[in-house]
Amino acid sequence: MRSDVDSGQALPAARRLVITPVRGIKEVRAGDDLVELIGDACGKELRSGDILTVTSKIVSKAEGRTVSAEARDEAVESETVRVVASRPHAGGVTRIVENRLGIVAAAAGVDASNTADGTVLLLPEDPDASARKLCRGLKRDFGVDIGVIITDTLGRPWRQGQTDAAIGTAGISVLLDLRGQPDASGRPMSATVTAVADEIAAAADLVKGKTAGVPVALVRGMDMLVNVGGLDKDPGARALLRPADEDMFRLGTAEAYEDGRRSGTRNGYNAGYDDGHAAGYEDGYAAGYAAAAAEARRRARSAGTQR
Amino acid sequence: MRSDVDSGQALPAARRLVITPVRGIKEVRAGDDLVELIGDACGKELRSGDILTVTSKIVSKAEGRTVSAEARDEAVESETVRVVASRPHAGGVTRIVENRLGIVAAAAGVDASNTADGTVLLLPEDPDASARKLCRGLKRDFGVDIGVIITDTLGRPWRQGQTDAAIGTAGISVLLDLRGQPDASGRPMSATVTAVADEIAAAADLVKGKTAGVPVALVRGMDMLVNVGGLDKDPGARALLRPADEDMFRLGTAEAYEDGRRSGTRNGYNAGYDDGHAAGYEDGYAAGYAAAAAEARRRARSAGTQR
Repeated sequence: MRSDVDSGQALPAARRLVITPVRGIKEVRAGDDLVELIGDACGKELRSGDILTVTSKIVSKAEGRTVSAEARDEAVESETVRVVASRPHAGGVTRIVENRLGIVAAAAGVDASNTADGTVLLLPEDPDASARKLCRGLKRDFGVDIGVIITDTLGRPWRQGQTDAAIGTAGISVLLDLRGQPDASGRPMSATVTAVADEIAAAADLVKGKTAGVPVALVRGMDMLVNVGGLDKDPGARALLRPADEDMFRLGTAEAYEDGRRSGTRNGYNAGYDDGHAAGYEDGYAAGYAAAAAEARRRARSAGTQR
Repeated sequence: MRSDVDSGQALPAARRLVITPVRGIKEVRAGDDLVELIGDACGKELRSGDILTVTSKIVSKAEGRTVSAEARDEAVESETVRVVASRPHAGGVTRIVENRLGIVAAAAGVDASNTADGTVLLLPEDPDASARKLCRGLKRDFGVDIGVIITDTLGRPWRQGQTDAAIGTAGISVLLDLRGQPDASGRPMSATVTAVADEIAAAADLVKGKTAGVPVALVRGMDMLVNVGGLDKDPGARALLRPADEDMFRLGTAEAYEDGRRSGTRNGYNAGYDDGHAAGYEDGYAAGYAAAAAEARRRARSAGTQR
C-alpha cells in the first residue's frame, strides 16, 4: 500500500456533494495573505471536512509570480524541464512541456488570462507547499480542518477542451485505490484507482468559471477524503503525476516518430552502406578488372603492331 | 462558431452546484426500461434544468451488451478501430485503442467490474443515441427537461488514476467556448474551451463511487447548459472527441518511435546503400583494375620469357 493512496478503508459512501462559489475575494496582490482573504470570504460557511479549491492564479499572484509579458518566452523556458510535444499554429507554436514540478502542461502553465495588462503569471513555486500553508493557516486562524486543492486548467490528449486538475493539495487523499475492493456484485475490482482530487478540481471549475472572477469554491460532502493530521508527510498533488518512464505517452507522436526516424536512419544508413559497399565493390572490381584487361590487350596489340 | 460548442451567450454564473446520488435502482437486466427505472428512483427530485449522469454500465446492461468472459478478447477486437498504444504487464497486455465510437480507452471500454460472473460488458452501441432516448423518455413520462450524460471511467496520459468522462450526452452543451470572452479583468480569453460535460461526469463520480452500486447521480445548478429543444441536431458527446489527425498524441511514444524507426531504417538503408555502393565501386574498381593490370604484367613477363 502506498502512503499517497487511500486504500479504501474510507470509501466514499454515496452522499450529497455541494459545491459553493466563494464570493467577495478582492483582486489578489503580491504579499496578500490568502488565509485571511479566503477565510474571511468564507466566513461561517467553513466547516471541518470541507475542501477548498483555489485557482492557482491567485496563489501565484499572492506569491508574486508575475513577470512582464515580454519575458514570457524566457519564463516558459525556465519553467520547462522537458519538451513533450510542440506544434506550430497560426499565432506561434503550442508547446506541451513537463515543467519543473513534473506537471505536463501547455507553455509550462505560464498564462496571461486573468492577469494584469502586460504581465503573465507563472505557476506557484511549490503548489503542494502553498496548499499546506493554507491548510495550516485555516486551522490556526479559523479552527477548522480543511482539505485544500490548488487547481490549474489543463488540456488533455484525445479529447477536446480543457478541464481543471489538482496541481497542489494538502490534507486530502488525492487517489482512491479501489483495487481489490469488492464491486457492487462482490467481485474484486481489478484496475481502478480514482483520481478524486482531479475530479474535485473539475467539479469546482463548474461553479468558479473562468470569466466570473470567482477563484475559490467550497466543496462539502467529501469529508472521508480529508485528514489534516499528517501534513508533514502529505505527498500532495505530486502523487497524481505519472513518472515519464511509466508513461506510454511521454512524447508527442511527431517527436517520438522523429526520434525513431533519426535512430533508424543512422542504423539503416550504416547497414545499407556496408551492403552497398560490398555490392559496389564487386561491381567495381569487375568493371575495373575488365577495364585494365582491355587496356592491357590494347597495349599488347599496339606493341605487336609496332614490332 | 461551431454548433456543438456553447459560445458563451449563457456563461455559467457562479452558483451553487448540488450533486445527489440516486438510490434505489435495482440491478439492471437486458431489456429493462431505464426511463422508468431512473425516473421512478428520482421521484419528485427531478426538475427541469437538472442533469442526470448515468454510468454507461447500466445502459450497456439494459441494451444487452453482455458477452461471456471467454469472448472478451474477440469483443475488444471487434470494438477496436485502431491501436493507439500497448504495453505488456504482469497479467497480459494493456491496449489503449480508439474504439468504433472514436473514444480512446483501455480495452476499447470492455470491462468486467460490476458485471455478472463470467461476463464482460461492451460500451453502449451508440451512447449519444442512448442519452437522447433517456432525455426524450424523461420528458414524455415525467414532463421534465433533463440533460443526460452517460459516463465511463477513463485513464489519461501523464497523470495517475482515472476519472469519469462523458461518452454520451443529450440536451446539454458539452463544451463551453470562452475564447474571446472577457476574463475577470476585461481582456479577451485566448485559448480556453472548457469540457463541461467531462467535468460534470467527473463530479458525479464522486458521489456515485464504484463500489457503492449507485449508478446514477442528479446534478443541479447547471441549468444554463441544458437545452433539450434541438435533440435531432444534438452533436452529443462526439463533440468531445479530438480527431486523431489533430491530436499530438494519436500514437503511443513506443509505437510512434517504432514507425519512425522503420521508415528511417528503410530510407537510411537506401541512402547508405547508394553511398556505400558508390564508394565500394570506386574501391572495387581500383582493386579490380590493379589485379587485372598485375595479371597482364605477369602474363607479359611470362610471354617474354617464353619467347
